[in-house]
Amino acid sequence: MINREILNLLRRYKTGEIQEKTIIAKLKNLSFESLGFAKIDHHRAIRKGFPEVIFCEGKTSVQVAKISRKIVDNRNNLLATRATPDNYEEVKKVIPGAVYNEIGRVITYELKKQKRSSKKIIVIVSAGTSDIPIAEEAAVTAYMMGNRVEKVFDVGIAGIHRLLNYMDMLNRASVVIVVAGMEGALASVIGGLIDKPVIAVPTSVGYGASFNGIAALLGMLNSCAAGITVVNIDNGFGAGFAASLILKA
Amino acid sequence: MINREILNLLRRYKTGEIQEKTIIAKLKNLSFESLGFAKIDHHRAIRKGFPEVIFCEGKTSVQVAKISRKIVDNRNNLLATRATPDNYEEVKKVIPGAVYNEIGRVITYELKKQKRSSKKIIVIVSAGTSDIPIAEEAAVTAYMMGNRVEKVFDVGIAGIHRLLNYMDMLNRASVVIVVAGMEGALASVIGGLIDKPVIAVPTSVGYGASFNGIAALLGMLNSCAAGITVVNIDNGFGAGFAASLILKA
Amino acid sequence: MINREILNLLRRYKTGEIQEKTIIAKLKNLSFESLGFAKIDHHRAIRKGFPEVIFCEGKTSVQVAKISRKIVDNRNNLLATRATPDNYEEVKKVIPGAVYNEIGRVITYELKKQKRSSKKIIVIVSAGTSDIPIAEEAAVTAYMMGNRVEKVFDVGIAGIHRLLNYMDMLNRASVVIVVAGMEGALASVIGGLIDKPVIAVPTSVGYGASFNGIAALLGMLNSCAAGITVVNIDNGFGAGFAASLILKA
Amino acid sequence: MINREILNLLRRYKTGEIQEKTIIAKLKNLSFESLGFAKIDHHRAIRKGFPEVIFCEGKTSVQVAKISRKIVDNRNNLLATRATPDNYEEVKKVIPGAVYNEIGRVITYELKKQKRSSKKIIVIVSAGTSDIPIAEEAAVTAYMMGNRVEKVFDVGIAGIHRLLNYMDMLNRASVVIVVAGMEGALASVIGGLIDKPVIAVPTSVGYGASFNGIAALLGMLNSCAAGITVVNIDNGFGAGFAASLILKA
Amino acid sequence: MINREILNLLRRYKTGEIQEKTIIAKLKNLSFESLGFAKIDHHRAIRKGFPEVIFCEGKTSVQVAKISRKIVDNRNNLLATRATPDNYEEVKKVIPGAVYNEIGRVITYELKKQKRSSKKIIVIVSAGTSDIPIAEEAAVTAYMMGNRVEKVFDVGIAGIHRLLNYMDMLNRASVVIVVAGMEGALASVIGGLIDKPVIAVPTSVGYGASFNGIAALLGMLNSCAAGITVVNIDNGFGAGFAASLILKA
Amino acid sequence: MINREILNLLRRYKTGEIQEKTIIAKLKNLSFESLGFAKIDHHRAIRKGFPEVIFCEGKTSVQVAKISRKIVDNRNNLLATRATPDNYEEVKKVIPGAVYNEIGRVITYELKKQKRSSKKIIVIVSAGTSDIPIAEEAAVTAYMMGNRVEKVFDVGIAGIHRLLNYMDMLNRASVVIVVAGMEGALASVIGGLIDKPVIAVPTSVGYGASFNGIAALLGMLNSCAAGITVVNIDNGFGAGFAASLILKA
Amino acid sequence: MINREILNLLRRYKTGEIQEKTIIAKLKNLSFESLGFAKIDHHRAIRKGFPEVIFCEGKTSVQVAKISRKIVDNRNNLLATRATPDNYEEVKKVIPGAVYNEIGRVITYELKKQKRSSKKIIVIVSAGTSDIPIAEEAAVTAYMMGNRVEKVFDVGIAGIHRLLNYMDMLNRASVVIVVAGMEGALASVIGGLIDKPVIAVPTSVGYGASFNGIAALLGMLNSCAAGITVVNIDNGFGAGFAASLILKA
Amino acid sequence: MINREILNLLRRYKTGEIQEKTIIAKLKNLSFESLGFAKIDHHRAIRKGFPEVIFCEGKTSVQVAKISRKIVDNRNNLLATRATPDNYEEVKKVIPGAVYNEIGRVITYELKKQKRSSKKIIVIVSAGTSDIPIAEEAAVTAYMMGNRVEKVFDVGIAGIHRLLNYMDMLNRASVVIVVAGMEGALASVIGGLIDKPVIAVPTSVGYGASFNGIAALLGMLNSCAAGITVVNIDNGFGAGFAASLILKA
Repeated sequence: MINREILNLLRRYKTGEIQEKTIIAKLKNLSFESLGFAKIDHHRAIRKGFPEVIFCEGKTSVQVAKISRKIVDNRNNLLATRATPDNYEEVKKVIPGAVYNEIGRVITYELKKQKRSSKKIIVIVSAGTSDIPIAEEAAVTAYMMGNRVEKVFDVGIAGIHRLLNYMDMLNRASVVIVVAGMEGALASVIGGLIDKPVIAVPTSVGYGASFNGIAALLGMLNSCAAGITVVNIDNGFGAGFAASLILKA
Repeated sequence: MINREILNLLRRYKTGEIQEKTIIAKLKNLSFESLGFAKIDHHRAIRKGFPEVIFCEGKTSVQVAKISRKIVDNRNNLLATRATPDNYEEVKKVIPGAVYNEIGRVITYELKKQKRSSKKIIVIVSAGTSDIPIAEEAAVTAYMMGNRVEKVFDVGIAGIHRLLNYMDMLNRASVVIVVAGMEGALASVIGGLIDKPVIAVPTSVGYGASFNGIAALLGMLNSCAAGITVVNIDNGFGAGFAASLILKA
Repeated sequence: MINREILNLLRRYKTGEIQEKTIIAKLKNLSFESLGFAKIDHHRAIRKGFPEVIFCEGKTSVQVAKISRKIVDNRNNLLATRATPDNYEEVKKVIPGAVYNEIGRVITYELKKQKRSSKKIIVIVSAGTSDIPIAEEAAVTAYMMGNRVEKVFDVGIAGIHRLLNYMDMLNRASVVIVVAGMEGALASVIGGLIDKPVIAVPTSVGYGASFNGIAALLGMLNSCAAGITVVNIDNGFGAGFAASLILKA
Repeated sequence: MINREILNLLRRYKTGEIQEKTIIAKLKNLSFESLGFAKIDHHRAIRKGFPEVIFCEGKTSVQVAKISRKIVDNRNNLLATRATPDNYEEVKKVIPGAVYNEIGRVITYELKKQKRSSKKIIVIVSAGTSDIPIAEEAAVTAYMMGNRVEKVFDVGIAGIHRLLNYMDMLNRASVVIVVAGMEGALASVIGGLIDKPVIAVPTSVGYGASFNGIAALLGMLNSCAAGITVVNIDNGFGAGFAASLILKA
Repeated sequence: MINREILNLLRRYKTGEIQEKTIIAKLKNLSFESLGFAKIDHHRAIRKGFPEVIFCEGKTSVQVAKISRKIVDNRNNLLATRATPDNYEEVKKVIPGAVYNEIGRVITYELKKQKRSSKKIIVIVSAGTSDIPIAEEAAVTAYMMGNRVEKVFDVGIAGIHRLLNYMDMLNRASVVIVVAGMEGALASVIGGLIDKPVIAVPTSVGYGASFNGIAALLGMLNSCAAGITVVNIDNGFGAGFAASLILKA
Repeated sequence: MINREILNLLRRYKTGEIQEKTIIAKLKNLSFESLGFAKIDHHRAIRKGFPEVIFCEGKTSVQVAKISRKIVDNRNNLLATRATPDNYEEVKKVIPGAVYNEIGRVITYELKKQKRSSKKIIVIVSAGTSDIPIAEEAAVTAYMMGNRVEKVFDVGIAGIHRLLNYMDMLNRASVVIVVAGMEGALASVIGGLIDKPVIAVPTSVGYGASFNGIAALLGMLNSCAAGITVVNIDNGFGAGFAASLILKA
Repeated sequence: MINREILNLLRRYKTGEIQEKTIIAKLKNLSFESLGFAKIDHHRAIRKGFPEVIFCEGKTSVQVAKISRKIVDNRNNLLATRATPDNYEEVKKVIPGAVYNEIGRVITYELKKQKRSSKKIIVIVSAGTSDIPIAEEAAVTAYMMGNRVEKVFDVGIAGIHRLLNYMDMLNRASVVIVVAGMEGALASVIGGLIDKPVIAVPTSVGYGASFNGIAALLGMLNSCAAGITVVNIDNGFGAGFAASLILKA
Repeated sequence: MINREILNLLRRYKTGEIQEKTIIAKLKNLSFESLGFAKIDHHRAIRKGFPEVIFCEGKTSVQVAKISRKIVDNRNNLLATRATPDNYEEVKKVIPGAVYNEIGRVITYELKKQKRSSKKIIVIVSAGTSDIPIAEEAAVTAYMMGNRVEKVFDVGIAGIHRLLNYMDMLNRASVVIVVAGMEGALASVIGGLIDKPVIAVPTSVGYGASFNGIAALLGMLNSCAAGITVVNIDNGFGAGFAASLILKA
């Protein structure tokens, strides 16, 4: 499409139909999309396998369903985060095969089953039962990006032996996502035990001076264990997405 | 002394020297110190063994030395916190036997060696080398309050096996003081491992978003391990003092 | 239980049923629970008398009832905090003898009456009527941990003589829990009057610049009275739990 | 002066020297100072007794001395706050009778001794030795505004009986200024004991989570004792000034 | 009442019915209320004219009504702040003459009309229409404390000439209460115009970065106009109360 | 009107009906409105074209309708921001021609179509779909102030080529308003691309550590691109108003 | 330069020297600088009159001098902000005609005197003497951008009549920059008095709870006067720059 | 080593030298290091190639040199961050071949040149000249971990075309580290342009409301571009370390 537009100009220039001055002006006026950003956009190709993502918060169920249908019509996989049961009801009407993960509040639809590496595993660890929704969001995101995912939920550091029982799995992981609220110390403990990239997700779970996740966020940013990086509070999607990029790095 | 004053009044009343109205007025005018607060102050007796404490920050070396001398003259043990080497030079002139703990920045003088319980131990754990000054302040404070103190320094959670090697000592402790900066997660880990009162001291050690100890403070307040209580940032003295009160509880 | 598993291995090794190499591998593969953490976990024995605790917030009534039943079936006492009347209705169906403290929002069930020390008392002081729910939570927690508890409610410092009338009770206490919102100054006042460990609980009670308990929290952390330690905002359970650990210290 | 200008206009108008249009225009163009603000400025008269104030921070000693000299030349009393010894040296050169309060860092010069009410007393209470500089600043300010001032220093609430010994003085006060750092609870305690306006001055004295006076500021704003008003952190001058206005109210 | 108890003791001592030792012990055991705090409590007398205050927030309508009735039965005036219409309905049942100020959300009942000074006026100025409820709370409080009150509402600084039109009233005031949200600059402007004590009440009115009153609070604390003191956000009652104390200073 | 009052005085003075002293007093007592502030208020003339603005939040629908009617009766254009559908229903009853912008939550009524400059354009750019309501508020405000407005919505920097396609429009703009939540980086990017005044509006759109717009606000204040100024969070009206003033500068 | 490169390609294509495929690939590979951003960069032309700016903080004097020399060699005017006297000494060596504004800490060099509009004035108002350095920075910046600048310093709102005396100048201004620390209320007052764009610069001047300019920043963002926009704390340069852009809008 | 100890026990048990009870007790008493943590520690092997790291801040030059020597003696590469020139002088005495990166403040010593992948590149982008020290710290860290590193410094978004010129390099990267202060928007822009993991490092560079890096930190956490993870303010080392782990993931 882009090429055709340029080609057209070039040919008309060659035939003398347009002047040097004109073609230069026109080349410069081509929108960035059509010309300049070819360079930028060709990374889109890499993204091919990736689902298109809808952030449902602040959208009506009808809007969510409409965008979902369009994505699937474009032969893309669908990932809709922060979806309510009501959003799902509406999506199901237009994409009967859509699946709803109630805990992680995610709607997904996979056009055709992706082949997943049997070697590169993303392990997702969560500290408390209240952190599970965010951990699930991360898990479904990573899974929809074509990765193998394993989950270890409810292994907070207040009973550290439970965590230590999972050392084998943690050592097998390529990337570990740690989801924790309150003081968020689980990320430090895991970061100190393994030699893998750890993505820490602070959650807004907590009371009093947890300040809706700030305590966990600060705890994770200040971790004494090197190699930990942090995403925004409750941003399970972001962690799953970043972990997927890492496996492709 | 108090009694004598009241007695005097009562006798003069009995002999008719003063009237009902007069004695009632006089009783009411007795200062709180002399009358009403006997009740409050008799807990002072309990404090007997405790040293008198000077907080040196914001005082001149001469002032520190003068107050120190007065304390010792009153037959009290001396504990001067946040003391500079210069403070110590001045104190040594008037109390030659005074001892300076350079790391913990504490000057002490014990009139006569206190007998320390061989059973009740206060264990002080610190996370990093930079937390040691505060840990030392806590240790010296607890020691001067008549307690047996054991120290485990530099056992941060980034290498948790080092900590686990000290489980026996932690289990023998009556109270554990945990001194940690950065994310302060050590308190949670220890609180999850033992069934003893844990006093957490956040330190101002850290960089960037540690905000001079706020990250550690929030981490400790929001600990998922029950039984942890917290003192102010860098307040090693407060932790040592509170631990001593606990052993007398 | 643990011993049996190891014993079994050892005997099979002794009889030559398994090889040296095998037994070493197996010993190393024993989960931390079964082997390594014996050391850690044997503190569980101490906890024996302690109830199992459920934090009800974020759980459905059915979930709360189910966990409660399981706890009681395991011959443990029950303590469910932040419980709604609705939670209680459901619990009562499966544990008819369960008791609900409406003010403190706590459900309890004691399998058999614990014997309480007549000497070691935990005194719980609260500043205003709005602080009472948190104070009750602390009181029920401490009681369920097997302690004698006395309560002094509504003795804020704006009428300090009311507080002073309770000096005797405060002096009889082994530990004092002070529950206060607004500026939280009650903790400092009590900390200055007695020689006992004081656990301060800031509450989210207040208006304007109280910032849901931050003013009280900062006030308590910065108390000029030594020996005060602090728990998280509104964390009555944590204070009751810590006080219980102190009495066992 | 103002009147003369208007008078002049009016007379020239009456004589026909200037037209209606002209005088109206001229009246409107009179600067606010000369016309409109007579109404506003005549409160200056009330201020007569008040000294002129210099805030020395950020001024050179020469500047301070120069302004000081000008104030005295205008027959005003002088009050220079946050003054360094160096500032004073320079001022003394041009106003030999100037007095320096080293603790409160205030330079003063009273042209002639003011008569002070023997009945209306401003009592200034401070919590700790480190609060004294701010308390002194308040005291000197109030004194220079023509008030009788009494000081009660170092009566923190960690030993509340010391404070109670001063009940008589507090009850005699017309206004009480309470200067306190750390948790600032002294303001609440005094506010609960007396029926007088209490002006609370939080100081930046404290450690760790006192955040340079924020803890004290919040504590005072959230005081459970009614009738307390607050000035900025370390603003002893503001408190002394406000107390003086109150005595004139 | 107190006297009688002491008298009784003294007489029994004089008659020899009780011994010296006994009477001294008994005197010391008298509650602070009955003995020691006579000194403290006799300021109650001054408060005589003051109404008893109920803070309705967090109380049921039945509780509010019950406490209100008791206050009136004790021959005290009633002031109930933060009262809902529902609270009022219930109070009216037991105190038919009670009055409800719907805007200020205050219930009042005056046993007998107080005589108000015709000279000492408290002027209450508010910046915007949304600040009026807090201004009304301050006004009713000051009125019920026996003061003459004048109100100037809706004179924000965005149209400063409206404010300047009220200079006369401001100059007649003994105390001015300024109620303002958003940036709270009205307090500074008024503080710069008059020589009277100004009590500033920040309100939680505002959007975005007003942070529920913090912007106004900081603005008022940092006012460049001397003589301003500040109460907590939305604390109209506190301002009215403090202004009343000032008029009695 | 003002002139007449002064004129009257002058004439009565000229005729001798009133004395010098009287006229001077009377001149000084003229309200600021009538005399002194002519100077201030004559800028009102400039404002002529501007609509009168109602901020609906915190007002009842009846109040909004009543004020709206009054504005229109005074022959002014109407702009009511933060209006609910309910507000609009009520306004329509009294101003049938009033228009409601549902997305921007603004009610407008233009008495007669204003002529808009075809050269000076205000371009409004928004980053995400959730920022559109605030962008619309800015757009309608600027439009009602008599400006030509163009809108470019949904061009966040996560796909910067979309933005670059609008370079022509941005270069044609006289002022650009950038509306963005989350990290607010769009303002910096646009500020770096063009040489026009950029007004940045942070929105409260975001999650976790966006803190209801603080992240965007700080991002915009700290922009590395010079020439950006910032209004309050979600303050679309303020941005539209400021942009209008700029076009008249 | 750019044109030549494209021209070359086109001509070689026309002559058949390069193929369609080749020229398209080459066109796409042209760096953004050479092709795509012609569109973006041609706004540089507008900037012609503008000086090049150096932010001196964090640069050595030698570095500052070197960059300065290069700027002047390129026939640009020079504006170096946050310059120390030492920076100036070094610059003077290489640009003898460079001028240093000591108060505003700015070094400037104007190649040839710019012609300044006699109609469009930028008025810069500052509240206190300590705000003057930032006000000077804004003034010099605006002046070097080719504008006429007038300054009104030291007209804080604590004596509002001084400000009102400058109404004429404010009304003559095209843009007003208000520089104020402490509570920053001056911006609101001026914003309420005039109908011109107001750029508010909060300064870090203040004490206690001014928090290095946060109080002023919040005050300005929350101003009740519409039309005010805000730049970063102490960012006089940014305000001067934005004001210049406005005059060109 | 571990095996031998266990083996020994087992054999003595088999021969009957020790009893069942004894061997079980002894097995349980093996330190975690010797037994349980074999599992944990064997990840050390992976770390082999990694240098040992010293954080120099808070250590004396002599301490730094001593630890450095020990590391090199253990045949490890050396990486000492936050090193002063003075630290380096001392290290050079004991490790003559040590190299000092003055800008990044890092001392390194590589025992033998590591072979670096020619395919996997870590690209480090920094926004402004003041961010370079942190960017260098990240670069040296990543290099010492055995990676190929490319640097693009000074490509802030205020001139976005400079950045776009580096699209090729960014697209070739396996991981991109973005180092930026002020509003930190560069991370968002780059995250929107490429499909690689982006590690964002906020720096404390900035003025006014940048709050020593908080503005940049919040900006990065709230980035609208997915796939960005964040490390602590100024933590170049952490970013370099995390990037290295990613390349090994």
